[in-house]
Amino acid sequence: MNEFELIDRFFTRAVPAGSSVHQGVGDDCALLDCGERLLAVTTDLLLEGRHFPPGVDPLSLGHKALAVNLSDLAAAGATPRAFQLALALPRADESWLQAFCGGLFALADEHGCVLAGGDTTRTPRLAGEEASSAEGPLTICVTALGDLPRQAARTRAGARAGDDLWVSGALGEARAALACRSGEVRSLSAEDAAAFQRRMDWPQPRVALGVALRGVATAAIDVSDGLLGDLGHILKRSRVGAVVEWERLPRSEALRRLPLDMQRRFSLAGGDDYELLFTAAPAQRVAVEAASAASVVPVSRIGRVVAAGEGLRVIDADGAPMATPWRSFDHFAA
Amino acid sequence: MNEFELIDRFFTRAVPAGSSVHQGVGDDCALLDCGERLLAVTTDLLLEGRHFPPGVDPLSLGHKALAVNLSDLAAAGATPRAFQLALALPRADESWLQAFCGGLFALADEHGCVLAGGDTTRTPRLAGEEASSAEGPLTICVTALGDLPRQAARTRAGARAGDDLWVSGALGEARAALACRSGEVRSLSAEDAAAFQRRMDWPQPRVALGVALRGVATAAIDVSDGLLGDLGHILKRSRVGAVVEWERLPRSEALRRLPLDMQRRFSLAGGDDYELLFTAAPAQRVAVEAASAASVVPVSRIGRVVAAGEGLRVIDADGAPMATPWRSFDHFAA
Repeated sequence: MNEFELIDRFFTRAVPAGSSVHQGVGDDCALLDCGERLLAVTTDLLLEGRHFPPGVDPLSLGHKALAVNLSDLAAAGATPRAFQLALALPRADESWLQAFCGGLFALADEHGCVLAGGDTTRTPRLAGEEASSAEGPLTICVTALGDLPRQAARTRAGARAGDDLWVSGALGEARAALACRSGEVRSLSAEDAAAFQRRMDWPQPRVALGVALRGVATAAIDVSDGLLGDLGHILKRSRVGAVVEWERLPRSEALRRLPLDMQRRFSLAGGDDYELLFTAAPAQRVAVEAASAASVVPVSRIGRVVAAGEGLRVIDADGAPMATPWRSFDHFAA
Repeated sequence: MNEFELIDRFFTRAVPAGSSVHQGVGDDCALLDCGERLLAVTTDLLLEGRHFPPGVDPLSLGHKALAVNLSDLAAAGATPRAFQLALALPRADESWLQAFCGGLFALADEHGCVLAGGDTTRTPRLAGEEASSAEGPLTICVTALGDLPRQAARTRAGARAGDDLWVSGALGEARAALACRSGEVRSLSAEDAAAFQRRMDWPQPRVALGVALRGVATAAIDVSDGLLGDLGHILKRSRVGAVVEWERLPRSEALRRLPLDMQRRFSLAGGDDYELLFTAAPAQRVAVEAASAASVVPVSRIGRVVAAGEGLRVIDADGAPMATPWRSFDHFAA
């Protein structure tokens, strides 16, 4: 049972009629009735040792804990309003808290997103088998709230065959940072390694682009588990297929200096990109470019939506299908 | 630095003008603008080994994870609408998940509170100092959302000198369950021990009472850290004092069979009660009793609000001050 099967099986239930929940489990954000508007709600849980390494810089951690949630709001096209923060800390370390709050509130203030409430507790000591005991992991759970006009509601389910497939920014660099850390990538300049690490530590949520694409994009998702895996969620929910043109995938200069097999694996199935993947009718190409220009976020047209029967294919410059044997990240994979 | 000092120092910031946040950090719920109504938002983080013991019954754990959040909504007088669930599990254990969801969704359905979204991940393995490694704790973070009419907004800050002080249900039994488990209480009937344990495992959020008290109570809080500690939050935010009459504190028959010193300690400073503590003008006594009858939740008038300078006193049947040397629960206490 993988993460998505677990969610399907235990946590996906029909939303009862008359409920104020407009869109429930299965998207980047839940959408709730909020007067004339919709409220978008999203939650991300970050655990030391799983989502970030012990001893990570608290300044970037504060930034990232909120950024990954704002990225979900961006996919829904919501304007950030407020967030809740639940924090389990091993101790009340003032310098750590100061740095964490510095990163957190700098991003919050940039987006006018106000800390509304939360919960603070201490991590438990875990009894070991012997007398020794380990400290539980630093735990951060953020729930972000944003809003949008009711008619601008956008989910993963709106892609139609014939739509263009677009992605913002560039892909694969956060995954390249992991590869640098593990020693998988060597013979790299210090500048490139630092650029990759910045992308891992300081993701920039595409909030302005997400808002600018209201009424333009037919479906959107934020790329957090890898392009192909996240595209798969759009295809499943929208009951369509897709063709991705490898040559059109946006890759930074630094990524292009890696071996080609790594470029492919990292940009197609890397994870931690926090770019927006979205679909839009070909008639909207000028509107998409305008949204990109207005938000100062580059976008690339990387393929097209096709009928469900055609599945998901990646093709090379000659139109030949490419093998993509990598799986998207799954927390419950054996 | 205790938990509340930490929150004051690092997480309490002025809410900027024009923000949609109506009430921020420092109450049971945040209140956000939501068209004609207010949205109440609350978050609780529950960690194995800190908030519940390893191996706890997943059925009651599912119930309690949502119940403690609905109790915060009850304090704000909000009607539950939806909740987000973030879960970190050591493995995808189907029978555990089935039981957890059973407890969770039974309470959710009872209150028409829909699971809107969330996050599911796996607990990290914590590297021990030697080769052995421990599993991170089971982690549950729930954010609950409810709404209420704008003019019914109620916080911890509205108590006025002269108000009556009320509490729902009965106090101290969850703390008595802890005392049974630790061996502090012996020579107790199996029935009494089971009654205490039920109060610990199956708290009943006072949602209907909280809603019925709209426009009646001037301030409210849910009693989760012990009566005196939580009353202290109302007094601080409202800038008032209080007199609590020990003889008026609601105690169950089972609790009255414990030694008197335990009855005092558990009901005044126990914790995990999830009762509503609220204030109301004496002119509202009939309205308070009507709210109690309508919601089928007993209430007791336990004292009165006085001027700030008088502080917080507990008096016995003769009006003499009682010593209350117990502190409220603090996660960061040394």
